[in-house]
Amino acid sequence: MVFQKQIQLPSYPRGFHLITHEVLKELPKLTGLVQVFIQHTSASLTINENADPTVRNDFEMFFNQMVSEENPNFLHTDEGPDDMTSHIKSSLLGSSVSFPVRRGVPQWGIWQGIYLCEHRNAARSRSLIVTAIGDAQP
Amino acid sequence: MVFQKQIQLPSYPRGFHLITHEVLKELPKLTGLVQVFIQHTSASLTINENADPTVRNDFEMFFNQMVSEENPNFLHTDEGPDDMTSHIKSSLLGSSVSFPVRRGVPQWGIWQGIYLCEHRNAARSRSLIVTAIGDAQP
Amino acid sequence: MVFQKQIQLPSYPRGFHLITHEVLKELPKLTGLVQVFIQHTSASLTINENADPTVRNDFEMFFNQMVSEENPNFLHTDEGPDDMTSHIKSSLLGSSVSFPVRRGVPQWGIWQGIYLCEHRNAARSRSLIVTAIGDAQP
Repeated sequence: MVFQKQIQLPSYPRGFHLITHEVLKELPKLTGLVQVFIQHTSASLTINENADPTVRNDFEMFFNQMVSEENPNFLHTDEGPDDMTSHIKSSLLGSSVSFPVRRGVPQWGIWQGIYLCEHRNAARSRSLIVTAIGDAQP
Repeated sequence: MVFQKQIQLPSYPRGFHLITHEVLKELPKLTGLVQVFIQHTSASLTINENADPTVRNDFEMFFNQMVSEENPNFLHTDEGPDDMTSHIKSSLLGSSVSFPVRRGVPQWGIWQGIYLCEHRNAARSRSLIVTAIGDAQP
Repeated sequence: MVFQKQIQLPSYPRGFHLITHEVLKELPKLTGLVQVFIQHTSASLTINENADPTVRNDFEMFFNQMVSEENPNFLHTDEGPDDMTSHIKSSLLGSSVSFPVRRGVPQWGIWQGIYLCEHRNAARSRSLIVTAIGDAQP
């Protein structure tokens, strides 16, 4: 059984945001794998701690240090200093996450959630594709 | 055909460890994809060189430099200096690996193996979910 | 339905290269997921911007800075200064990419493409395994 749908997220400000709830609603009751894919190259997805908001603040701080907008060697900066850095952050974190599911229930740890990693200053609406593949029988 | 099982790993010390054998045992003879997912946010999984132990030592050295515990800007450090850094390392490396399989045989290169990346000092037992999806017929 | 094939890429020079076309040809018209896996630990795959070549140049520049061959602490350097750094770049970017597909059409954004990330100076031919799993009926 294959299930596939598009999710249009609202605009989020630059930073790391929990979107677990948006992804999980409407998930079918199958057993197998779920993949969430972001159709952009300047925002990304990751799975991390779902409780303390300072974790997401620390992610934003750290990635801004590691992929500095002050780096004078970037060539692809037509859309501003957050242009090329967003592409690099996107590949470091990845354009998709996937996780196991059993009868529609994600098989992740109690502290895990899905982050939208918005790397651009002028955040647009972002589009996700959720694909679930598995066995519909219990 | 969908196959899913949980693997409870023993505690490993902080560092990078080959766990290929633990993942592969009991794998069904299907053709398709295998995903290995770690149910934690302070340890991660990656696929890399399976032979020379100094590679894993160099990984630990490099990630400690790149995600330094000396960074004074981290807020989420209640559990110690290895708290927030472990979350970041986890997202840089990822919470899952997946690989193709043919009739139960992983289709990877001869030098590839699966690493458990244990980022915490006080390492606990870690739980993995292995999911295989594919065609059981040869 | 499971589809699996091997792609032997020609040698590419060190750097980041668009290989979208090589991956997509011969893709079956199914709806589900496609995974592309590289059978090596010193080259990697990522999805990023498919238009401006300076993006790929900036990737090469940035990763050379972030994972410096000048680091005196690397032990695994038997094959040269690009040996251990290639393994680390490989795990930061990942050994596979996966993306949703609908009736054989990749469901990615218009700016997304697949990069081969060649981290070695003496580039060899690289081998990929493409696996598609899904529903063959429209």
